[in-house]
Formats: sequence, C-alpha cells, structure tokens
Amino acid sequence: MIEDNSSLNTRDLEDKRFIEQSFPVKDKKNIIQKPLVIVSESMRNGDMYYATRFLAPDPFIYLCYPYERRDILIVSQMEYERARKESVVKEVRSSLDYGHDLKTEELIIKILQEEQVEAIEVPGYFNLYTAEALRKNGIEVIPVDEVIMTKEREIKNEQEIGYLKKAQSACEKAMALAISVIGRSTVNGNVLMENGAILTSERVKACIEHALIDSGCTCDGGEPIVACGKRAADPHFSGSGPFVANEPVIIDIFPRLKAERYFADMTRTVVKGEPEKEIEEMYEAVLAAQNAALAIVKAGVTCRDVHNCVCDTFEERGYDTIRTGGKKGFIHSTGHGVGLNVHEKPSVSDNEYVLQKGNVITLEPGLYDPEVGGVRLEDMVLVLKNGCENLTRLEKKLAV
Amino acid sequence: MIEDNSSLNTRDLEDKRFIEQSFPVKDKKNIIQKPLVIVSESMRNGDMYYATRFLAPDPFIYLCYPYERRDILIVSQMEYERARKESVVKEVRSSLDYGHDLKTEELIIKILQEEQVEAIEVPGYFNLYTAEALRKNGIEVIPVDEVIMTKEREIKNEQEIGYLKKAQSACEKAMALAISVIGRSTVNGNVLMENGAILTSERVKACIEHALIDSGCTCDGGEPIVACGKRAADPHFSGSGPFVANEPVIIDIFPRLKAERYFADMTRTVVKGEPEKEIEEMYEAVLAAQNAALAIVKAGVTCRDVHNCVCDTFEERGYDTIRTGGKKGFIHSTGHGVGLNVHEKPSVSDNEYVLQKGNVITLEPGLYDPEVGGVRLEDMVLVLKNGCENLTRLEKKLAV
Repeated sequence: MIEDNSSLNTRDLEDKRFIEQSFPVKDKKNIIQKPLVIVSESMRNGDMYYATRFLAPDPFIYLCYPYERRDILIVSQMEYERARKESVVKEVRSSLDYGHDLKTEELIIKILQEEQVEAIEVPGYFNLYTAEALRKNGIEVIPVDEVIMTKEREIKNEQEIGYLKKAQSACEKAMALAISVIGRSTVNGNVLMENGAILTSERVKACIEHALIDSGCTCDGGEPIVACGKRAADPHFSGSGPFVANEPVIIDIFPRLKAERYFADMTRTVVKGEPEKEIEEMYEAVLAAQNAALAIVKAGVTCRDVHNCVCDTFEERGYDTIRTGGKKGFIHSTGHGVGLNVHEKPSVSDNEYVLQKGNVITLEPGLYDPEVGGVRLEDMVLVLKNGCENLTRLEKKLAV
Repeated sequence: MIEDNSSLNTRDLEDKRFIEQSFPVKDKKNIIQKPLVIVSESMRNGDMYYATRFLAPDPFIYLCYPYERRDILIVSQMEYERARKESVVKEVRSSLDYGHDLKTEELIIKILQEEQVEAIEVPGYFNLYTAEALRKNGIEVIPVDEVIMTKEREIKNEQEIGYLKKAQSACEKAMALAISVIGRSTVNGNVLMENGAILTSERVKACIEHALIDSGCTCDGGEPIVACGKRAADPHFSGSGPFVANEPVIIDIFPRLKAERYFADMTRTVVKGEPEKEIEEMYEAVLAAQNAALAIVKAGVTCRDVHNCVCDTFEERGYDTIRTGGKKGFIHSTGHGVGLNVHEKPSVSDNEYVLQKGNVITLEPGLYDPEVGGVRLEDMVLVLKNGCENLTRLEKKLAV
C-alpha cells in the first residue's frame, strides 16, 4: 500500500491527467468496476478540482470510468466553452444537450441512461436527496468512504510540493510583516500603539491580507487569526479589538495561491512587552512538543505515534491533554494534511494512518488556558523516507 | 404562503433568535414534527450560519426541535468555549462528553439515543454516507428538499437589508476604482498602459481586492472577474493578461462583509478606446433588457415573468437566448438571490417562484459572442410590494 502510493510521486499533473495515470491495470485490488459520479462545485471541493482542473462556483457533474481511463464533464451551457478550454477532462458536454432547465437529478438520470450505466459509486459526501432520486429511478448508488482522488491527494508530487512551498513563502512574508508591525508598536499603559493609534487585531489582519494579495494569494479558506490575550485560549477565535501589552498574540495564516489553488498554513505566537512566566513556560513546552514531533516524523510512523509524542511532552510538564479528556491544555489534534484544502487527510491525531513519503502535514501543538491565554506554533512539513523537511523557515521567538 | 413569509420581515436576528421566532404554533401547516439535524461547517453553509451564528471552518452538529423551539449545538472540545461565547444557540455541548475521538456517525447516534430521537429530518444536501450509517442503526433519516432556514433566508429583514446595502456600498467603491484605473490608462498600439507598464486583469483585480479589504470585505466567494476581449464571451472566465484597447472588459465583483457575512454582487462592462459597433449594440440591448426587468420586478411577479421579459427584449433585437436553446447570445439565467451565499434562492430563471417583498435578487442580463466578446450589467435589487429598490447606484457607461 505504502509503496504503491509513493510511486505516484512521479505524476505530473500538468502533462498527464489523473485519469490516465491512476488505477494501474496490473494492480487488480485497486480496480473499481463501477463508474464514479461526483456532483459539486470545485472552488472548495478539492477532489473535484483535482480530477477536472476546472474551477467553477456552482455544481457540475463529473463521471469517471476509472478502469477504462475515461472521464466526462457535464456543465451548463454557460460554462461549456470555458470548461472545454480550461479543464483537463477531454470529453465535455453541455447540459443543454439533454434538455432545457432540467433538475440535477433529471440530468444525471438522462446521462446515465445514455451511458447505459445502472450502478455508480459516489463519494460519502454525495447529496442524500440526489441519491434517493437516482435510486427511485432504478440506479444503484454506492457511497464509498474515500474516493480515489481523496486518497491520491494525500501524497504530493514534485509539482504540488513546489506549489505548497510557493504558498508557504507568501505566508511567511505576511507573517514576518505582521510580527514586525507588532514589534515596532509602542506600549502605552495597557495597550499597543502604532503611529498614534491603538493597534488592533483588525489592523494586523488587514496588513496580512494586503501582503497576501500582492503575493498572488487569497484568504478564501478564512481570514487570518490574530488573537490577543485570554480569548486566544479559544483556538479558533479570530481576534478583534486592541492589542494588550504583555499578553500573547496567536497569529495563524493559511493563504491559498490564487492560480495554483494550493494552501499553506503556519502559526506563530508573540508577546510585545514582558510575557508572564506562565506564558513563557507554555511557549517552551509547545516548542519542545513541536521539536519532539519534528524529530520522529518520517515514512512508516503512524499519526498516533506523532500525536502521542506531543501529548507525552505536555503531560511530562504537567499540562492536561486531549488524550486524557482535558478541557484545557492541549485540546486539539497535532496537525492535518495541507493541499487543495487547508484541512485534508491525513489527520495527525489518534489514528492508525501510516505516514508516507510525500505527505505534507502541519505540526501545530498548542496550549490553552482561559485564565492566561493561548500559545500555538505551527510548521508545515514534507514527510520523507528517513525524516521530514520543514517547509517553514521563519524563526520562533516569543518576545518581539 | 407569500403573506406568511413576508411577515418574517419584522424578525431581528440579533435580538431574537431564529428558533424563537420561526414556526408559529398557530400555523399548523408549518409544524415540523421531527427534529432537524444538520452537520456542516458554517463558513460556506448559509443555513448553518443562519441558524447558529457560529462561524467554524470544520463540520459541527446542529439539532433543532422546531415545534418545541429548542435547539442544540454539538462542537469539538476545541470549539466549545468559543461556541458558548459566539453562538446564538444557548445549549452548547462538547463532543468530548460523548467519548474520545468518535467518528461523526458514532457521535450523532449517541446524541440521538440520549435525546430519545428515532427519526430526523435532514437537508437534501446531507452526507449520504452518514445517512446510511444512521439508518443501519435504526434511525429514520428523511431528506427534505428545502429546510426551514433556506426558505426563511429568501426574505431579508431590515437588518439583513442593511448588511446587503453596506456590502453593496463597498462593492461600488471597488468597482469605481477599477473603472477609474482603466479609464486613466493610455492606449499604446493594441494594449492599455498604466505608469509605463502594461495594464493587466491581474493588476485591476488586485486593486479591487485591496479596496475591499479596506472596506472590511473578503473575496472568499471567489476572486473578482476582470475579463477583457473575446474570452469574456465565457461568462465565468476570470480574466488574465494584458488589456486590449477598444475591447469590452467585464468587471464582476461579489465581496462578502467579513463580520456580518452578507454578500453583494454587481457587474459593469467598459471599453477603453473606441468600442466596435457590435459591442455598442450589445450594450444597448443588455441595458434595455435590464431596464425592462427593473420595470416589472415587484411582489407577486414570478421569476419566469422576469426571465421571459429579458429573453423577449433580446429576441426582439435578434439575439439568441437560452430559452430557445441558444449556444451564444443570452446563455444564463437572469439573476439569483443574494445573502449569506452569493448564489442563493430564488433563482431568477424559468421557474414558478413568486417574488415576495424582502427578496434581494440580482438582475444581470448579458450577451456573449465568441467572435466579439461579452457584455453584462448586474444590479442588486430589493423586491417591494409595488416595485423594487435598486441597491446599486453606480452609473452605467460603456466608454471610459
């Protein structure tokens, strides 16, 4: 399993299409007998974009015969010419050829009738209403836990790694700017000031977003987190209002390259002023947990091993963890895959997934205490045969 | 039906929650006997955000007893404190209280067992895999075509209209800037120049995005369309490369207010230089079609009436339309609802939906010809009892 997938590292998405390289005929285990149908937009759905390389905000239909290495795209007349020009799928049809103003279900039934298909596989996230309408019309609909694209997307090829590095480089530039804005601010009583105005989360977020636009990125996965003080103990609190001196600021940036569509993801925590002793200790613990994880990540290690290693480090220092049902301390997973989605497989948590060469994952331990605040550090790493390459270069320093 | 819904115009989302105001007990027709379950993130899913006002990038669970006016949010431990602070749902539970690292399906089954619920309604877009897992455990799962939130969201209350106007104002500011950048450019042979450099789609898009950030907006619904020349005949072509003089540029901007989460949507078409006669005629036809639609939109008129009125205008002038199976000319619908999603109900196309006071819809006729290019004009309007209020104020002028 591991060896088969890592051989996919030689794929080149631009030159040869997904459908032409997947499902090697000699590997009988992987043969899917039934055609696969996905109905989705492709701005958020990484599987759909991965298979078609056609970016569209509204749902369209992808029909794929993996064994025959043939696939078909069915789009509205409005999208037809663009799909023909932009998609890697060679066979593109207009829904108008099946009739005027058909409902999605009616359209799919007509297509499957024309194709003489009586049974299809669909992703687990397939629309329940649509599935039932197809079944009422005699079509067998089989949801699979993980479609072939989701599985393939776990292993990045050279081109994808290049995109992830490019996104990460833009991310670090924006992060460095955010940290420098906070570093250059002045302490005035309790709050931070910038050019005579109170420095806010909103202001730093805007700086980050402007920098990302100039690097060809979008924040369509969500606005950056710039959260200061005790509310930063809620890991996904986006942050708002004035910065408080001497309190930790969590900065979590996850931009996407507009053209290439790949994400990056990183987090730093900084304090302007004098950090409290508790925060300093939390920071040291988080750094130690991340370094411990970085030291063991390599092909063949399970996600559970990595997650446990982070939990061990925290528990040794007396912090609660999610493993022991803790409601503060380390209360989330260790990381996640990054690619066409900012959160994709594998989940670096308590599961048996075996890391493989070509996985790109985050390592982002954090500690949270509603009485004190939060600390999180996140790097994005490429899993290699004998270790990992940290794609995140920016230094880690608490006081700025 | 129409009157019941428009009475919802007095709702105030901030003061009184969805669950407390919907489903009037006296209106027996609307009573849903079975609890409703939605499992989704809420950054894209407008229903989920509408019901919970809790913004989260990863899926969480919403369980609602409409008849009892009670609802429950179940989130991960990591999101628990934030959900308690940010959501309008008063009863928030942590998934950790049901067990450690449960699969979504296991978690839902445990919740429903605890609640003694044996049958649920779910939205049509509910995950098929999850539905089947619940059914295997004896839970009846009934997909409904349209959940109550989707229906309610069609009619905007005063507060929502305020948000849409605010988003529209930011949108117009960005549009005016984009048009002024093109207007101030100089013609050099075939291309447009700005400060000695060739003016590109990418450059104008970046101007728009910077302006939107400064107005508190995000482009997470997709980057703006800035498409010049013949490729603009593909309605969703995003645009790239140098601007060509004397050719139409379609600018379509659809930002979202970051804090309030509501969208705006507008389109203008401009030419720098001397537009071809064909483009001038197309522009006049599009403007006439839009004015015809603006003149008939009011409560009680069907979407089909509005769409037909646009098609009539085009066909009278000799253009093909989608109604007659045209593959160029007017090849899309007349418009769509705008709110927490950029495309939401009602669809202003060939359907029987009766417009109601409080609908906010776009009117966006366009003409496309691969040999010439594209022209589209889009305004966002509020449907009133005796007409409509055009929320889009910016002038329409082809030559700049």
